[in-house]
Amino acid sequence: MLQVELVNIGTELLMGFVVNTHASFLGRKLCNIGATLVRQTCVNDTADHIRASLEAALAGSDVVISTGGLGPTSDDITRNVVADMLGLKMRVDARAMENIETRFRRRQVEMPESVRSQALVPEGATVLYNAHGTAPGLAIPISNRRARWLITLPGPPRELNPMFEDQVLPLLVQQFQNQLPISDCRIFRVVGVGESSVEERVESLLKDIPGIEIGYCARSGEVDLRLVIRGEQQNEVHRWAQEAEARARKALGDTIFAVGDTSLERVVVQLLQTQGKLLATAESCTGGHLANRITLVPGSSQVFREGWITYSNHAKAKHLEVPGHLLSEHGAVSEPVARAMSEGALRKAETDYALALTGIAGPDGGTAEKPVGTVFIALSSKHHTEVKHQRLQLDRETFKFAATQTALDMLRKELLKA
Amino acid sequence: MLQVELVNIGTELLMGFVVNTHASFLGRKLCNIGATLVRQTCVNDTADHIRASLEAALAGSDVVISTGGLGPTSDDITRNVVADMLGLKMRVDARAMENIETRFRRRQVEMPESVRSQALVPEGATVLYNAHGTAPGLAIPISNRRARWLITLPGPPRELNPMFEDQVLPLLVQQFQNQLPISDCRIFRVVGVGESSVEERVESLLKDIPGIEIGYCARSGEVDLRLVIRGEQQNEVHRWAQEAEARARKALGDTIFAVGDTSLERVVVQLLQTQGKLLATAESCTGGHLANRITLVPGSSQVFREGWITYSNHAKAKHLEVPGHLLSEHGAVSEPVARAMSEGALRKAETDYALALTGIAGPDGGTAEKPVGTVFIALSSKHHTEVKHQRLQLDRETFKFAATQTALDMLRKELLKA
Repeated sequence: MLQVELVNIGTELLMGFVVNTHASFLGRKLCNIGATLVRQTCVNDTADHIRASLEAALAGSDVVISTGGLGPTSDDITRNVVADMLGLKMRVDARAMENIETRFRRRQVEMPESVRSQALVPEGATVLYNAHGTAPGLAIPISNRRARWLITLPGPPRELNPMFEDQVLPLLVQQFQNQLPISDCRIFRVVGVGESSVEERVESLLKDIPGIEIGYCARSGEVDLRLVIRGEQQNEVHRWAQEAEARARKALGDTIFAVGDTSLERVVVQLLQTQGKLLATAESCTGGHLANRITLVPGSSQVFREGWITYSNHAKAKHLEVPGHLLSEHGAVSEPVARAMSEGALRKAETDYALALTGIAGPDGGTAEKPVGTVFIALSSKHHTEVKHQRLQLDRETFKFAATQTALDMLRKELLKA
Repeated sequence: MLQVELVNIGTELLMGFVVNTHASFLGRKLCNIGATLVRQTCVNDTADHIRASLEAALAGSDVVISTGGLGPTSDDITRNVVADMLGLKMRVDARAMENIETRFRRRQVEMPESVRSQALVPEGATVLYNAHGTAPGLAIPISNRRARWLITLPGPPRELNPMFEDQVLPLLVQQFQNQLPISDCRIFRVVGVGESSVEERVESLLKDIPGIEIGYCARSGEVDLRLVIRGEQQNEVHRWAQEAEARARKALGDTIFAVGDTSLERVVVQLLQTQGKLLATAESCTGGHLANRITLVPGSSQVFREGWITYSNHAKAKHLEVPGHLLSEHGAVSEPVARAMSEGALRKAETDYALALTGIAGPDGGTAEKPVGTVFIALSSKHHTEVKHQRLQLDRETFKFAATQTALDMLRKELLKA
């Protein structure tokens, strides 16, 4: 099996002012070609630490990927540490230099002299040109260690991600054809059921399947069930993977919203697109989080045209025609107000569906009767309005995600009926 | 200096279906007490790998913190691996068991038998009770290795984060008083200037300050400048830190929006609160991202009452009274339409300020004249509307962040004038 180790370089990752998304991105992409990310290590921008981590990784894996430290500032030293460690001379790469100059010219900002250092590359390295930034990546063949390749990539995800997909993955597939195992990895995305319940429903049904590895990953409002089947024969692995999927689907039904790398909002937008339906949103406590999730999906403008954020009672009455007596009798956080918000949004936007949320995100604003975390979620169609009541004891950000997760799932189930 | 090492346990972190936010959170909190996160390693849920990583960390640092693998499912084995490695017997902790039972009773869901295993703790360990979940953390004193404490924490951030702040940090401060160094760490959050320009402006001014360490961290639409001063004497360290801050502020002016752990939206909400001003938003291309950022700030309901998401031309005309001839003559993505959107939002919401964004997030929808990434950002007050035009060549999510970053910064600068 092709074993890959990741070394993230950057004091900022250990000082905590940036979240490291590289392991998540690379792990997912490597899993898809049958390679395994066996370890990830993060070190600070010190030559000794970088070198020690890279040496340990080069001794223990087939491929080592490093991220970060390729930029123009004085703490970017990966390039020099690697050249020094491997005894490689540096040369100026003309195409990398041209890319740097072109990017600055196009942005019409003055070019600091220091950025030119990014065009220095070790001799013998394959240069991975950067379509989204100035620092090129490097793929360096290794001869005197266990690892056969050291691949250094720039830190910013918007530069690293396309470089990895377009240049590194094809290189790995070509170089390690024989080492990529026969395996089938399927990740079932489950919504509306807890982790323990998912395990109780599937574990006994799945555990006797030959070569299976079962994993669970719980997030707020979502559980991933990961099934990997390994074996000797392609057709056997495929057959058992199909069998495992059939059993998982039987046990979990329509709580599985997708298989693989997607999001609930993407699934919902696709269903709306396929059925040619329009959606409007009316949000109080989630403050635009639902609309933001929907509009993160490319092409969502075909199905989503307008939404309201009505934090105040006044805005609920004015824009969504929520009757004043409902607000005064039941309060803004109530079943009747959620219902009136989604029906108002449906009417005003003239859409096929509307989703509305009203609740108390916290940390303040709760009462004994309606504690922090209380939320009412309404889905309206032309014929019917359904309201769910939940209590989500979560921080503000997770509350928003979990509440909009329920809203999206209500709409998904409604669209599946059609 | 107190050196801390972090070991994240979880195959899901290496398979890529969850982003590891622990290093970011813990690194920031440790930096605040003068401790240093020297390394972070992520391993899968295999007993051998967990044990090898923990042993390496216990040999190289003063404190080792592990995350994950304390849950109820079959791949949660951290507790047993640790007890086995350290030769500790397990006991049932009555209070942890009570917490588990109470949580299930309150959620009114049936309790799977497997969750009881989470109340098993090694003898001699201090139990860190979990206010937000069922798995307790453990603080285990270590006698025969370099490290003096091994602290195991649950994986979900909403459980780990409060447990770390409320229980682990006080323990570390109490146990390691003498090892916490004299240092001053200040992080300047800069908006509207690139990383290279920040370095060019400050590096030569700061580098001769005794005991200084300068670091830069670039994100889309933001740069962090990190200054750490170390020394022998508290008053000297403090004096040089003040001097460094004065020089950084002189060089960077009002592009510094904050010092330390906050967000631009939090700074803007605080300015609005202090000045008693109200804000409305009108979003096209950002689809609720701006409103979502603002409403992530607790207490934002005092300054933000309503917002619109007007993806379609029809919605722009209907809700924000954007004149039809502007839309047909200039197109929805134009300076006049951005201006009309923010002035319409200001008028309809009767607020002191309104922000509006219209642009092309991509990946499709661009033209030669208005390529993907074009965005017009408008800020209206009663007397004046200002419109900025940007071209942000970014993926959809980063585009939204960078565009709303500019919008928030326009409002911040306006509020600073008042």
